Amino acid sequence: MAVYTQISSEALDAHLKRYDIGHAVSFKGIAEGVENSNYLLNTNQAPYILTLYEKRVNKEDLPFFIQLMEHLHNKGFACPQPVRMKNGEALGELSGRPAAIVSFLEGIGVDHPIADQCRMAGETMARLHLAAGDLVIKRKNALDPAGWRPLVEANTARADEVEPELAKLISEQMNEIEKSWPTYLPSSVIHGDFFKDNVFFLEGKLSGVIDFYFACNDFMAYDLAIAINAWCFRDDLTFDSELSAALIAGYQSVRALEQKEVDAFPILVRGAALRFLATRLNDWLNVPQGALVIPHNPKPYSARLRFHAGANDAASYGLT
Amino acid sequence: MAVYTQISSEALDAHLKRYDIGHAVSFKGIAEGVENSNYLLNTNQAPYILTLYEKRVNKEDLPFFIQLMEHLHNKGFACPQPVRMKNGEALGELSGRPAAIVSFLEGIGVDHPIADQCRMAGETMARLHLAAGDLVIKRKNALDPAGWRPLVEANTARADEVEPELAKLISEQMNEIEKSWPTYLPSSVIHGDFFKDNVFFLEGKLSGVIDFYFACNDFMAYDLAIAINAWCFRDDLTFDSELSAALIAGYQSVRALEQKEVDAFPILVRGAALRFLATRLNDWLNVPQGALVIPHNPKPYSARLRFHAGANDAASYGLT
Repeated sequence: MAVYTQISSEALDAHLKRYDIGHAVSFKGIAEGVENSNYLLNTNQAPYILTLYEKRVNKEDLPFFIQLMEHLHNKGFACPQPVRMKNGEALGELSGRPAAIVSFLEGIGVDHPIADQCRMAGETMARLHLAAGDLVIKRKNALDPAGWRPLVEANTARADEVEPELAKLISEQMNEIEKSWPTYLPSSVIHGDFFKDNVFFLEGKLSGVIDFYFACNDFMAYDLAIAINAWCFRDDLTFDSELSAALIAGYQSVRALEQKEVDAFPILVRGAALRFLATRLNDWLNVPQGALVIPHNPKPYSARLRFHAGANDAASYGLT
Repeated sequence: MAVYTQISSEALDAHLKRYDIGHAVSFKGIAEGVENSNYLLNTNQAPYILTLYEKRVNKEDLPFFIQLMEHLHNKGFACPQPVRMKNGEALGELSGRPAAIVSFLEGIGVDHPIADQCRMAGETMARLHLAAGDLVIKRKNALDPAGWRPLVEANTARADEVEPELAKLISEQMNEIEKSWPTYLPSSVIHGDFFKDNVFFLEGKLSGVIDFYFACNDFMAYDLAIAINAWCFRDDLTFDSELSAALIAGYQSVRALEQKEVDAFPILVRGAALRFLATRLNDWLNVPQGALVIPHNPKPYSARLRFHAGANDAASYGLT
């Protein structure tokens, strides 16, 4: 949630001449996205989001993200649509950074979802998985269990500064999850960051999904496990089994889980908790000088991990 | 440029019920304003800016800012119009902070103005001074020369970390300016922060002025001196006399300066440079832990102050 790079009005005007979307009538940096600089751009034709990809994003991944959004949009999935320049390219350069313009999606993320919203979120995720399956371009998940281990190890020594026995928890869970992680499950392109602020609602309906910058090829049920962590815990960190059942039922109304996905679910949901605990702990303990974002507190994810370690059966999540 | 306070979708929906402006269809924190949290709110009726006043703002000043914007808007001056709630109040409370909603103003600030834009900026400032003169509510300028002195003194010891001889410059100039500061000049409500990013242009015309949170009662010519500093120096920190002449001519086409304002101009423009140098130096040397904003570099203002100290006659600015 920051704007790292300033764009002069003159540079913006020059950049927009490469497109066929009219001229700017307002332009505001917005507090959305941690890795990139995002701007809300209104032209005399329509609203857009302009994104500058900052240095933490691997340039080589950008064509994947752009093609994924185009692919989903072409299949009728509600997500930002990349706008192509007159030369046919969707990726340009502005203020020395790779830049893209995508359509603006109306709607607002919910902070305290009700079961019906969780059901819609589950349905939408399953539609995303089905629509994205035939995308030709691929992207490996950089944050799979092999990617968590160095983060866990780098932060074990100071983990107990955050809460007692956290070092023990993450070391033990890392070992267990690594040992039990499934080697094969049905895969597709997953969203990878299906959090409440990335899923918009409008007039009681789910209006669309944004922020595909963690999308990658991985197990579909793992994406669902990320969403269970993100959507189904209350502010007091207790688990809401009604929301979980609704989210999973919504998913299965579009795409039924296979038995092996059900069987693997307890370890997937534990892994998903460890994945976000590991990155949050790392960001929390290593805030760079001059950071413009408040790091996410890791504690909500240690609570989730403890819950999952204790639950350990698919029925706890509403799966049978 | 930050969003200090999060607003849940549920709290937003509840808050909007106090107004008659429809329901939210999108809501984004924007990177605008240093002291407050600002959000771009689109309802099904129109776009608005929602502002939460954070703790650095004195609550007792809020009615002044709100009444000033209403007063200017009612006189046809293009600025944000505060929206009143159904109960008639313009100031509410949201997420534990005082909150206001104002109309959204189209347009974009220019980074490298041309003379014609400076002329329009000058005209608009003079219109603001004339329109605001009869505002009943008053606000003292907290950043008058008596307000600069403690900032200068608190940062003299470390000033040379920023550039050689800066401590000497600010001490000497503080003394000289204090001695020569006029005791009486024609006054009105001044904007106080008439920088390029607060003045919007659209389709080649000046479309409006935002950010009245430094507005106060003070000398009108001092506001013009602030604008000369903000608009009339090139990126290489040299002074552009053509832009200065255009800005002043624009101002005088609406309100002619009196002879005593012309005579005082060299000290006003020097004081304006010292005022921003003092606050920027203070912010630069005292970045709080966890700050979400990049402080403004003080160096462009030490260069301005050195220029003004050397110029020291009204003709240098295009005044005769």
